[in-house]
Amino acid sequence: MRVLFLGDVVGRAGREAVHDRLPELRERLSVDFAIVNGENAAGGFGITPDIAEALFDAGADVITTGNHAFDKREILTYFDAEPRLLRPANFPPETNGKGSGLYPTRDGRHVLVANVILRLFMDTSDCPFRAAEKIVEECPLGYGADFIFIDMHGEATSEKLALGHFLDGRASAVVGTHTHVPTADHMVLPGGTAYMTDAGMCGAYDSVIGMNKEAPVERFLSKTARPRLEAADGPATVSGLLVISDDATGLATHAEPVRLGGLLSETQPDC
Amino acid sequence: MRVLFLGDVVGRAGREAVHDRLPELRERLSVDFAIVNGENAAGGFGITPDIAEALFDAGADVITTGNHAFDKREILTYFDAEPRLLRPANFPPETNGKGSGLYPTRDGRHVLVANVILRLFMDTSDCPFRAAEKIVEECPLGYGADFIFIDMHGEATSEKLALGHFLDGRASAVVGTHTHVPTADHMVLPGGTAYMTDAGMCGAYDSVIGMNKEAPVERFLSKTARPRLEAADGPATVSGLLVISDDATGLATHAEPVRLGGLLSETQPDC
Amino acid sequence: MRVLFLGDVVGRAGREAVHDRLPELRERLSVDFAIVNGENAAGGFGITPDIAEALFDAGADVITTGNHAFDKREILTYFDAEPRLLRPANFPPETNGKGSGLYPTRDGRHVLVANVILRLFMDTSDCPFRAAEKIVEECPLGYGADFIFIDMHGEATSEKLALGHFLDGRASAVVGTHTHVPTADHMVLPGGTAYMTDAGMCGAYDSVIGMNKEAPVERFLSKTARPRLEAADGPATVSGLLVISDDATGLATHAEPVRLGGLLSETQPDC
Amino acid sequence: MRVLFLGDVVGRAGREAVHDRLPELRERLSVDFAIVNGENAAGGFGITPDIAEALFDAGADVITTGNHAFDKREILTYFDAEPRLLRPANFPPETNGKGSGLYPTRDGRHVLVANVILRLFMDTSDCPFRAAEKIVEECPLGYGADFIFIDMHGEATSEKLALGHFLDGRASAVVGTHTHVPTADHMVLPGGTAYMTDAGMCGAYDSVIGMNKEAPVERFLSKTARPRLEAADGPATVSGLLVISDDATGLATHAEPVRLGGLLSETQPDC
Ligand SMILES: [Fe+2]
Ligand SMILES: [Fe+2]
Ligand SMILES: [Fe+2]
Ligand SMILES: [Fe+2]
Ligand SMILES: [Fe+2]
Ligand SMILES: [Fe+2]
Ligand SMILES: [Fe+2]
Ligand SMILES: [Fe+2]
Repeated sequence: MRVLFLGDVVGRAGREAVHDRLPELRERLSVDFAIVNGENAAGGFGITPDIAEALFDAGADVITTGNHAFDKREILTYFDAEPRLLRPANFPPETNGKGSGLYPTRDGRHVLVANVILRLFMDTSDCPFRAAEKIVEECPLGYGADFIFIDMHGEATSEKLALGHFLDGRASAVVGTHTHVPTADHMVLPGGTAYMTDAGMCGAYDSVIGMNKEAPVERFLSKTARPRLEAADGPATVSGLLVISDDATGLATHAEPVRLGGLLSETQPDC
Repeated sequence: MRVLFLGDVVGRAGREAVHDRLPELRERLSVDFAIVNGENAAGGFGITPDIAEALFDAGADVITTGNHAFDKREILTYFDAEPRLLRPANFPPETNGKGSGLYPTRDGRHVLVANVILRLFMDTSDCPFRAAEKIVEECPLGYGADFIFIDMHGEATSEKLALGHFLDGRASAVVGTHTHVPTADHMVLPGGTAYMTDAGMCGAYDSVIGMNKEAPVERFLSKTARPRLEAADGPATVSGLLVISDDATGLATHAEPVRLGGLLSETQPDC
Repeated sequence: MRVLFLGDVVGRAGREAVHDRLPELRERLSVDFAIVNGENAAGGFGITPDIAEALFDAGADVITTGNHAFDKREILTYFDAEPRLLRPANFPPETNGKGSGLYPTRDGRHVLVANVILRLFMDTSDCPFRAAEKIVEECPLGYGADFIFIDMHGEATSEKLALGHFLDGRASAVVGTHTHVPTADHMVLPGGTAYMTDAGMCGAYDSVIGMNKEAPVERFLSKTARPRLEAADGPATVSGLLVISDDATGLATHAEPVRLGGLLSETQPDC
Repeated sequence: MRVLFLGDVVGRAGREAVHDRLPELRERLSVDFAIVNGENAAGGFGITPDIAEALFDAGADVITTGNHAFDKREILTYFDAEPRLLRPANFPPETNGKGSGLYPTRDGRHVLVANVILRLFMDTSDCPFRAAEKIVEECPLGYGADFIFIDMHGEATSEKLALGHFLDGRASAVVGTHTHVPTADHMVLPGGTAYMTDAGMCGAYDSVIGMNKEAPVERFLSKTARPRLEAADGPATVSGLLVISDDATGLATHAEPVRLGGLLSETQPDC
């Protein structure tokens, strides 16, 4: 199976880049299933129902999120109604929405997608390692799931790598989000799990993680200035990972980055 | 000028990779000046005088460090004696060693190298923005320095990008270290400063940031297990950035990643 | 019922103070049940089986702990064998020992004691609010438990107060530990739960939270000095809280601090 | 000299308690100089010029602050104009206002007051130990200052105790703020410096650090609820410390807590 993941969509620039690129990417790369992290799609903070619909229309089969999942109030009930929108599975049990789901591809295979949030340097949450393990054990590769994708939303490279190795051989792909910077360490781990510390954002990279760059610089310098953070304009990049799995095992055979448009060096799979 | 930077060297695997690759890289890429972050060269924790000497012998003109600078006690006096070994400039004023220096290239041009440590999700330090600004203002591009290289040792992508933009146009290159994962966002910022959020480590990538992978996973899972962290063996990657500057302005014209050996996708500049 | 709680015992000075004072305190204050936090009893870091035995001998009915529970390796199997020694209930499920227990008083009433660890500014753990709630709901006041005592081991005053109010009316007493400084906010909350943000330590207060004071000062000043932290000697204080409950409801009617010996102002209940 | 310090005034309840109690306290305790931390006086977040004026009118000679110093925008220029309002001295050099001052008592003696902010578990700042040391060295006891008072605004008990010991013998009093809970460890350190880890807040204690208690509890439980934090109403306590110094040395001879009104146990000096 060929699964495409795109990292945190940030603001209008990120949304437009996804809208412009995702349809052709699905086509050109023969994508069977596409997942997009949408936690910053609404001006950098959260996501609205309309924006979620637009991402689905652009070709996202599932939207994952993270710490910004609930920034917009109007998304709360939408989370309950729309099973293709996920929030971290290890949020409190009463939280609106759900953290994982099993979804059919257009040709009837099944993709298990889970979203977990990590803990180092982040808000408090229950154990993401155990949450992810429970999800993959309840619907393992070959028994229910043809492909398992984990979006791990986290800050620290050590925790992301540890979770990747912990799930190695049990998921098809474990890919990080949240730092908004793509890493160059995409690989297939020894057990057959595709891995990338961070997928990077879909947004304008002449910025501070997608936001207009002046304001964050001022905030780092001053205790009095509180300039508004706004999603940056300018040429945007879509950034993510294409994972190709062996249908016999559900494990990954290839993991290739996708970066198109904007300021970053472009790359796309030729397989 | 052509300046090569290699990120955090981790343990024996990282040291051997640098020893094997750096001489040929200097040659093939016509490197005028090479800088290596050595903070994890001694088994993952710190650096010793012997290891520093070996890195100089392999072709490092300057060694930078970070939070692990002083893990080995025998390095303390060596820091005072060896001006080519730097620790973060914004450590307390009484700290052994120094945080920046002006160094001649083999053909008599001058490279200003500074090491600063960032603050988000890290130990306390004085302001890295002001420390870096003071260093570049005291020896600006064109007046004393032909090239200015800043190794910013930090965790958070937001702080790294903010410092990059803050120094844009005032340094030739601002490159991150510490996360041990290379980022794919190398670029020349609008003002002419080469930038990369993290240069990645020189070490074995089938690991958790260069350390044997079982121990960190256990530590994330358990409050009782305290397995020893040891530098990972196995095929190692050298990871870093080549920056090419315009000698008339001291600003960057190209920034190209270097990743050779080991598990990561290989890349090297063809310019 | 009259329940005495003493905060974190730190090193030899703290142990000797408890040994000297606890028997007479039990006697003079007609204590029905005594609980002592022992997480720093062994030189400031952890607790050993011998030290636990000595604390039981001195009059502790139950010993609670915290983040230092497992600092000494020899305590691991002891935790499994000794039900009167508790570790945080919200540690991972596989953790040695247990986090709560129901214990008889000498006259046959029952005290439920639970130990939870908080999360703000501390290592990652699963939700302490839900862990504590589950414990009190499974054995509520009046149905199984005559008295419920919660030792909440935490750093932030906001999280401690929030947990106190969350459990108000459902526990007899919710008392904090870990900061090693007694607070002066002992009170009975509106719902009938005795509360104190931190019980303070049993140890030498001419120190930095019970450790020899020079070393911590140096560590705050320097990035190179790493002086050993050792438990401070000198005159020691026992610090804690006496809670008196109404046997009809299990709720608290009085909460009075105990501070005896050493440098702090002395106080003890006269009721 | 007799110097009274009152901790963080929180909201209307805190302001009214100070207004009601401070005049009589000055009188009854023969206070020569009164200092009040006002960082939460405006609804829990910051301070306004009018509120500062009211605190001066109630008897504050100097107002200190902390991380909330600039929450209200209208205070920025007032900080520049009013030398009796202090913000942390170790904020960036360009920050409005100043961090210390030398003030005359009504009978012509001089009190040096400084405000520093600590770093553990707090936002980034430059070194508070060196900032405080510089201030006391530039105007030492007996040479310019008859009394030196340091308000250290911080979270961690270890850092507060370390700073207290670091300044012991060089300041008349080092008292903590920010946790909003009074500690019971007031003492005169061996070198003659009065010390208290936290002075506690002036506000309503049936709350979570002065704020309406339901909202913080919900925030600890939920990732979706974001109830507004509002300063709590209800009976309020004034909380602080009276320090008595020897005019010959400037060092402290007594340190006695003040807690009046509201839910906490009342205490006041009888000396
Ligand atoms: Fe994001
Ligand atoms: Fe995020
Ligand atoms: Fe490193
Ligand atoms: Fe580092
Ligand atoms: Fe403790
Ligand atoms: Fe503790
Ligand atoms: Fe405050
Ligand atoms: Fe504060």
